[in-house]
Amino acid sequence: MTRGPKLPELAAEMAAEFAGTMILILFGVGVVAQAVAGSGLGDPQSLGGHDAIAWAWGIGVTLGVYVAARISGGHINPAVTFALAVFKGFPWRKVLPFWFAQVLGAFTAALIVRWNYSEILQKFDPGLTEKSHIVFSTMPGNGTLPIGTWGAFRDQVIGTAILLFLVLALTDLRNAPPLANLAPLIIGLIVVAIGMAFGSAAGYAINPARDLGPRLAQYLTGYGTDAWRDQYGHLYFWVPLVAPLIGAVIGAGLYILLIGRNIPGEGDEGVPTRPEPEYDVT
Amino acid sequence: MTRGPKLPELAAEMAAEFAGTMILILFGVGVVAQAVAGSGLGDPQSLGGHDAIAWAWGIGVTLGVYVAARISGGHINPAVTFALAVFKGFPWRKVLPFWFAQVLGAFTAALIVRWNYSEILQKFDPGLTEKSHIVFSTMPGNGTLPIGTWGAFRDQVIGTAILLFLVLALTDLRNAPPLANLAPLIIGLIVVAIGMAFGSAAGYAINPARDLGPRLAQYLTGYGTDAWRDQYGHLYFWVPLVAPLIGAVIGAGLYILLIGRNIPGEGDEGVPTRPEPEYDVT
Amino acid sequence: MTRGPKLPELAAEMAAEFAGTMILILFGVGVVAQAVAGSGLGDPQSLGGHDAIAWAWGIGVTLGVYVAARISGGHINPAVTFALAVFKGFPWRKVLPFWFAQVLGAFTAALIVRWNYSEILQKFDPGLTEKSHIVFSTMPGNGTLPIGTWGAFRDQVIGTAILLFLVLALTDLRNAPPLANLAPLIIGLIVVAIGMAFGSAAGYAINPARDLGPRLAQYLTGYGTDAWRDQYGHLYFWVPLVAPLIGAVIGAGLYILLIGRNIPGEGDEGVPTRPEPEYDVT
Amino acid sequence: MTRGPKLPELAAEMAAEFAGTMILILFGVGVVAQAVAGSGLGDPQSLGGHDAIAWAWGIGVTLGVYVAARISGGHINPAVTFALAVFKGFPWRKVLPFWFAQVLGAFTAALIVRWNYSEILQKFDPGLTEKSHIVFSTMPGNGTLPIGTWGAFRDQVIGTAILLFLVLALTDLRNAPPLANLAPLIIGLIVVAIGMAFGSAAGYAINPARDLGPRLAQYLTGYGTDAWRDQYGHLYFWVPLVAPLIGAVIGAGLYILLIGRNIPGEGDEGVPTRPEPEYDVT
Repeated sequence: MTRGPKLPELAAEMAAEFAGTMILILFGVGVVAQAVAGSGLGDPQSLGGHDAIAWAWGIGVTLGVYVAARISGGHINPAVTFALAVFKGFPWRKVLPFWFAQVLGAFTAALIVRWNYSEILQKFDPGLTEKSHIVFSTMPGNGTLPIGTWGAFRDQVIGTAILLFLVLALTDLRNAPPLANLAPLIIGLIVVAIGMAFGSAAGYAINPARDLGPRLAQYLTGYGTDAWRDQYGHLYFWVPLVAPLIGAVIGAGLYILLIGRNIPGEGDEGVPTRPEPEYDVT
Repeated sequence: MTRGPKLPELAAEMAAEFAGTMILILFGVGVVAQAVAGSGLGDPQSLGGHDAIAWAWGIGVTLGVYVAARISGGHINPAVTFALAVFKGFPWRKVLPFWFAQVLGAFTAALIVRWNYSEILQKFDPGLTEKSHIVFSTMPGNGTLPIGTWGAFRDQVIGTAILLFLVLALTDLRNAPPLANLAPLIIGLIVVAIGMAFGSAAGYAINPARDLGPRLAQYLTGYGTDAWRDQYGHLYFWVPLVAPLIGAVIGAGLYILLIGRNIPGEGDEGVPTRPEPEYDVT
Repeated sequence: MTRGPKLPELAAEMAAEFAGTMILILFGVGVVAQAVAGSGLGDPQSLGGHDAIAWAWGIGVTLGVYVAARISGGHINPAVTFALAVFKGFPWRKVLPFWFAQVLGAFTAALIVRWNYSEILQKFDPGLTEKSHIVFSTMPGNGTLPIGTWGAFRDQVIGTAILLFLVLALTDLRNAPPLANLAPLIIGLIVVAIGMAFGSAAGYAINPARDLGPRLAQYLTGYGTDAWRDQYGHLYFWVPLVAPLIGAVIGAGLYILLIGRNIPGEGDEGVPTRPEPEYDVT
Repeated sequence: MTRGPKLPELAAEMAAEFAGTMILILFGVGVVAQAVAGSGLGDPQSLGGHDAIAWAWGIGVTLGVYVAARISGGHINPAVTFALAVFKGFPWRKVLPFWFAQVLGAFTAALIVRWNYSEILQKFDPGLTEKSHIVFSTMPGNGTLPIGTWGAFRDQVIGTAILLFLVLALTDLRNAPPLANLAPLIIGLIVVAIGMAFGSAAGYAINPARDLGPRLAQYLTGYGTDAWRDQYGHLYFWVPLVAPLIGAVIGAGLYILLIGRNIPGEGDEGVPTRPEPEYDVT
């Protein structure tokens, strides 16, 4: 069967980032909808709780990276794109297009989840209030713990620094990365563990597209301008946009400082943005 | 020791699909029996709950695919067979035989679980009512959430579209799939995450054989014609048959549109239906 | 540093089976001690519950197989040894020595757990009664569900048949097994899922050494002759010895019937009992 | 971009051990902070419980080893360094520098977690008492089970012996280790299962740096000298320092006795401390 012509390179990369981020958010926002609203209509954890949230987000990362890795490098996170531009030679002219595709993928996925969970959300939280806000976008302390803007900002810097430190460690072919093209599996485990260890203070966005896309969907489908605010009424949406970009640069820089520059052998040629399977496996 | 002659090709493929789907359903229906009826006789989650259900279904997929992959390609799902026929050149004349083998495998496995859990089901639900219905086949909103036929249909289209999008991404040798023949492990993780994120509205059949086979077993072993109906008394069995086929075509088509057609290199020669290990590993 | 001479072949294989089975039971009996007695002294599941039991048993299998695979093939289960002798040419003269080493390894591991959990068991169940019996050895319906001798026997035949069917599928080099020497990881997942789906009726011994070794340790360290009986006072220890051997032959035979004999290519040369890494990876 | 010159060999190795251990403890102490203090402010297990703790520690090990394996061998545990010096020819002159880097990495990570969870810890345990002590360092019986100094010492010897027995089994290239550089994944699973099966009696430090580093951070940030004591008021910090070193030698020695010396082929040349990817994959 005919599939139509190939897209131009940048458009193909944007399609891949759109698709990969869509997969991530279908699982990510989907699991929170199920664990919060679905379980919320039955017994505690009857359809999953915190552990399910951590695992499904991590598996979503693994699968989203597999979808996009061949064509676009599988960033599926504007903070990753940014750090690769700063340190690894990823072309700056592609940064904004990648960001756009990532946010659009996350937005589309959140609309699909919003639609599929519409009856359940309606029953769980008829007024579409704070109660189901965290299904879509993050809040300081997940809306309940005693964390303010500053604490959430700090947490997002730390969490994204850990993510980028490890993403660089696991994809640096001069280091000792997983072979057999299994790095996406281990990268997914990073996010499982961040959810378990750094999920209290700000809901581990650690990815501006993960937060902005669903927040836009939430805003447009009944939550109104409360979507942009935290439980205290403060504008909050900027925290999971800005802090991850800062954290990403810190984490990637620390990787280069502590590990990358010390690896024996030829100079680092940068993370390949179009991995060829031949390069991933010895 | 002598093992008897090899079966003809199509019979061998049907035996493989039968066996692989049987393994899937032994774990899948088995874990729901344990988590619902077994735990139901003790403390909550004493023998597992939602998380165990998600993991055991996913591991069942991994193992069922490993069983059948060499001989039949390891579809173990009529929706996968259908999508591969539509987009990947899988022979249409084999579609009905594969479907038959898959449903028969699921039916046989459900009978084994029905037999092994007979005393526990008898104690948990002596009248074989709705209470244990979801051990075998799916219901809108798992029998309790506020979902009707339409919501369940929509959910099954979405869930199966996600499944096929990812199955194609993970088995397209021109993309960046897992190597070392570990795609079945990652494919199992898809189903773990679908159970966690898309398990609320219709019990994530996403596989017509998974639903029809156990429903037949249920019908024949005491549940009677209620097996074909949902909690509202409506005929429901057709939803997890029809919606997954539609979703599979949508998901596979979107993969080709967004990713498959843009991969650099030679044209796609289709998913190999008899994977040779040499082709899976570089 | 000098390590002393190599042992003769059979003694080396017995040492490997001893060590691999010891690792399996250290984790297996250890996790039940923690989840039953440790959690039993605090809040429910405070130190783990059913899910932890399923995962730690499975990881124990993975690790035990890795320990022994190079030298002895990594059976760590008399039912595996038996089925390989019946169908795969494993030498019958080694069956009894392997069984002895496996039971001794399980016995030793159970003594270590018994010792390490002595204060906790003393506090949880001062009389060493039925309450902590299942820490060491299995009972029908885990001591609480309405299962008798026959139901447990049936369950152990079924569970072990599933195990052997899959072990043969995952180690048959003519099939499509995991490569990169990762079969032990996937084999561990079999046992995770059996624990989740077939753990209700008889505690999934599916391994005579797993049950007899710890039962002997239990008998000798304070539980007395109750160790050999079930909650109804019937002699029970023979069920998890005999039923797994029957199930293993059924499962392995079904694999050969449904899959093994139909694989294209040269004749099966049997499962290698001394896998060389070169053969596992392409 | 320029990254500055390479460090001298030992400094580079210390930087790698610092970074790898920091990653381990960021996840390890982080997950306990979240599960104990975060969940403690909401519903039970609302932000994770025992299972999350076991998984995040294990994933932390996997990721920490990946970070450091290329440059320093990825010990990230003084007991591993010690056992490799005793049995595998690791240079004794590097032992103290490695220990220093490991403790410093753990200390730094614990300070970061302490900072990030400061508001949550303040609310959960305003007086910084025993209630949150186990967020940072271990106590006999996790502060609640009936275990004293001796029981905790015994448990730490056993747990670390299991760890080192398995680490040697999984990294001995003459044995049958995981290939495709996936040993760090399986090594992480060891620690998941130790947490599930040997986490009751002493909180599974099994790593002197894991305990001493965070204990120092705890001491300096408000817990005072209680940090060095157990719930009975006894000095306790020495137990998770001394017992793991003893256990490591026992476990590594047993591996060599039961498995290592019996592997067919050329003599063991020791665990490579600078693994080249070429050596990990066939």
